[in-house]
Amino acid sequence: MLSGVHRRYNPLHDSWVLCSPHRTSRPWQGAQEAVTGDDKPEYDEKCYLCPGNTRANGEQNPAYKSTYVFPNDFAAVMPITPYSLAEESSSCKDNDLFKAEPVSGNCSVICFSPKHNVTLAHITPSEISVVIDAWKKVYQSAREDPEVKYCQIFENKGAAMGCSNPHPHGQAWMTSIVPDEPRIEHESLLKYYQKNQKHMLEDYVEKEIALIGTEGDRIIDLNDTFVLLVPFWATWPFETMIVSRKRIPNLLDLDDKQQLDLADIISRAAIRYDNLFKTSFPYSMGIHQSFVGGDEPDVEHLLFHFYPPLLRSATVRKFLVGFELLGMPQRDITPESAAASLRQCSLKHYSSS
Amino acid sequence: MLSGVHRRYNPLHDSWVLCSPHRTSRPWQGAQEAVTGDDKPEYDEKCYLCPGNTRANGEQNPAYKSTYVFPNDFAAVMPITPYSLAEESSSCKDNDLFKAEPVSGNCSVICFSPKHNVTLAHITPSEISVVIDAWKKVYQSAREDPEVKYCQIFENKGAAMGCSNPHPHGQAWMTSIVPDEPRIEHESLLKYYQKNQKHMLEDYVEKEIALIGTEGDRIIDLNDTFVLLVPFWATWPFETMIVSRKRIPNLLDLDDKQQLDLADIISRAAIRYDNLFKTSFPYSMGIHQSFVGGDEPDVEHLLFHFYPPLLRSATVRKFLVGFELLGMPQRDITPESAAASLRQCSLKHYSSS
Ligand SMILES: O=P(O)(O)O[C@H]1O[C@H](CO)[C@@H](O)[C@H](O)[C@H]1O
Ligand SMILES: O=P(O)(O)O[C@H]1O[C@H](CO)[C@@H](O)[C@H](O)[C@H]1O
Repeated sequence: MLSGVHRRYNPLHDSWVLCSPHRTSRPWQGAQEAVTGDDKPEYDEKCYLCPGNTRANGEQNPAYKSTYVFPNDFAAVMPITPYSLAEESSSCKDNDLFKAEPVSGNCSVICFSPKHNVTLAHITPSEISVVIDAWKKVYQSAREDPEVKYCQIFENKGAAMGCSNPHPHGQAWMTSIVPDEPRIEHESLLKYYQKNQKHMLEDYVEKEIALIGTEGDRIIDLNDTFVLLVPFWATWPFETMIVSRKRIPNLLDLDDKQQLDLADIISRAAIRYDNLFKTSFPYSMGIHQSFVGGDEPDVEHLLFHFYPPLLRSATVRKFLVGFELLGMPQRDITPESAAASLRQCSLKHYSSS
Repeated sequence: MLSGVHRRYNPLHDSWVLCSPHRTSRPWQGAQEAVTGDDKPEYDEKCYLCPGNTRANGEQNPAYKSTYVFPNDFAAVMPITPYSLAEESSSCKDNDLFKAEPVSGNCSVICFSPKHNVTLAHITPSEISVVIDAWKKVYQSAREDPEVKYCQIFENKGAAMGCSNPHPHGQAWMTSIVPDEPRIEHESLLKYYQKNQKHMLEDYVEKEIALIGTEGDRIIDLNDTFVLLVPFWATWPFETMIVSRKRIPNLLDLDDKQQLDLADIISRAAIRYDNLFKTSFPYSMGIHQSFVGGDEPDVEHLLFHFYPPLLRSATVRKFLVGFELLGMPQRDITPESAAASLRQCSLKHYSSS
C-alpha cells in the first residue's frame, strides 16, 4: 500500500499527480456546492430540451419518446467558418509565437430521455443501450464527414460541472483537428504498442484484475467485457474509467452482448456515484475512441473517463486551482480508498423506494 | 484581426486552445457564483489568519503589522515522509503502468496584510513591495534547502477559486521534484533559446509592444520594466501575464527600481480586475521563475500567470469542463477583446470613495 506523500505517473497522459493522503483532515471554510433537489418535474415547460418545447432559436422539439439528437444552437465549432488570419499571425509564419489556424466542425446535443427529471442513474440498462445507439449514430455521422478528424462525445452533469440545463443530455463536438488530450493519449498508446507489441490498456486491466482483493485493489465493478476502476493515476478524487478487458477500438465495434455489458457498467457507475454522497453526483464524462479521420494507426481503446469534482460530501468539492494550475495536479485521498468507498456503495439508487 | 473559430498555439506550454468568439451570446441557466460583499470587518475573531488569533493546530499568530509567513498547518508536502512502495509499484519496476515515487517538501502560508478586509487591489504599491519581500524570503529559504528542487508561489483568491479564507494570503509549496507545468515551460524556453540564441519572452514582449494601438493589441499596461498583457494563447477568459521586458530570472534578481515597477504593475492588474465587473475578482495567480535546485540551465523568466474564471459578470464564470477536459481548452471571447476590456477599466478602485 502506498502511504505518505508521493507522486504517481499517468502513462496515458505522460504526466504526474501529487498524492497527499493525509490532507482531508484540514478544516473547510470555503465554497459550498449547491445541492439540486430530487423534486424536479418529469416535464418542465421552461426547459429548452423537453419534448415539444421551443428552443432559444425558435425551433420546436418533436414529441420524442426515447433519445433526441439535434445541432447545438450555440455551437463552439461550425461547418463554415468566416476566418481571416491576423496580421501578426501571417507575418510571423516562421516563428512559433503567433501561430493560429482555422477550425471547423459541428456540435450536437444528445438528449438521453424525454423525462426532465432522470439521469443515467435512474434509467435501465436497456434504456442506456438506446443512448449508446444515439452515440453510435453521431459517431458514424462524424466518420462520414470528410472535414471531420475527431469526434468528442461527452456529458457535463450538474451545475458544479458547468451544466446549464439539468435535462439529461450530453454533447458531441466534431472537429477538423484532433484536440490535444486524445492526441496525447494516442501517442502514449502507440508508443506502448510499438515497444511491447501489446495494447497498454489490456495489460493494465489484466494487472488490475490480478490485484482484486489486495490492498491495491482499484476495481469497483466488472462484467464479461468491461471494468469500472479508479486508475492508479487518478487526479479527481473519485475519478474512474470504464475500459474494456480486451481492446475494442470504438463504439461501432461493439457486438450486442458487449453493448449490453457497457450499458450495465455505465448504469452501475452512475448509481454508485449518486449513492456515495446521496446526491445527484456531478461529473464531466467523455468517451475516447478511434479517431474518425486522418492516417494515424488506430491503437485507440474505447475508454470512458469520469471526472467528478466532489471530495468529502454533496457540498464540498476539490478545487484544482493554484498549485494544481501552476504546478501539477494534487489529490487528497488515495485512489485505493476512493475505489473502496465506491465499491461499498449499494446498487439500489438512494431515491428509489 | 482573427475572426471565426480558430485555434491558437501556446508556445510556452506546447498546447493549443480553441477560440470560438461568437459563443458568449448563448443563454446561461447554469451555476451563479456567490458574490462576496465588500462589508467584511478589518479584524475577524473567527479568522485563523488574523493577528493574535489561534489557528486550528492551537498555535497563536503574533500581532503582526505587515506580512506574516508560517508553515501551512495542513501541508500537502512535508519534510519527512513515511513512505512505502506499493507491491505493484515495486514489482513492476520495468514497466510504466504503476510508477510512483516519494515527494518531500514544505508549504508556507504568506499573509499579505494584518487587515482581514483588503486584497492586493486595496493596498499601495509600497505595501505590495513588502509582500514581494516576503516572497523573496520564502524563495531564498527554498534555495537553501538541499532537498528542494522547486518553489511554487501562488495565490488562490475568492471562493470560486477554492480559497478557503478571504484573509489576504498566498502560499508557497516547495517540492523535491519539479512539477510538470514549470517543467514544460522550462523545456519550451530552453528549446527556443537553443534554436534562436534569444529568450522567447523577450522576443514575444517586443512583438507585442510593436502591436500597441493596432487591432492585435493585447497589452493592458506597461512600465519601464514590466508589461501586463493577455497572451495571444490565453485560455481563461481574462487570463493575463506580467512579464519583464528584458529577462529577469527570478525575484532575487530584481533591483530596487524593478521591484517597485513590479509592485506598481501588480497593483494596476488587481485594480483593473476588480473594476471589470465591480467585484472582488477571483483568480489563481502564480509565479514561474528559476528552479531552486537541480542542474537544468537557467532559462526561466520571472513570470506571473493570472488565471481568473469570470466570463460575463460577477456571477457568470467560464467552466473548463467537458470538452475542455476531454478534448482541449476552449474560450468564448478573443484575447484581444479581453485585453481591450481590461485596458478600459479605471485605475481608481470602484470601492474607493
Ligand atoms: O490550501 P487551501 O487554500 O486550503 O486549498 C486550496 O488551494 C490548494 C492549492 O492550490 C488546493 O489544493 C485546494 O484544492 C484548494 O482548495
Ligand atoms: O455547452 P454548455 O453545456 O452550454 O456549456 C458547458 O459545456 C461546454 C463544453 O464542455 C463548456 O465549454 C462550457 O464552458 C460549459 O459551461
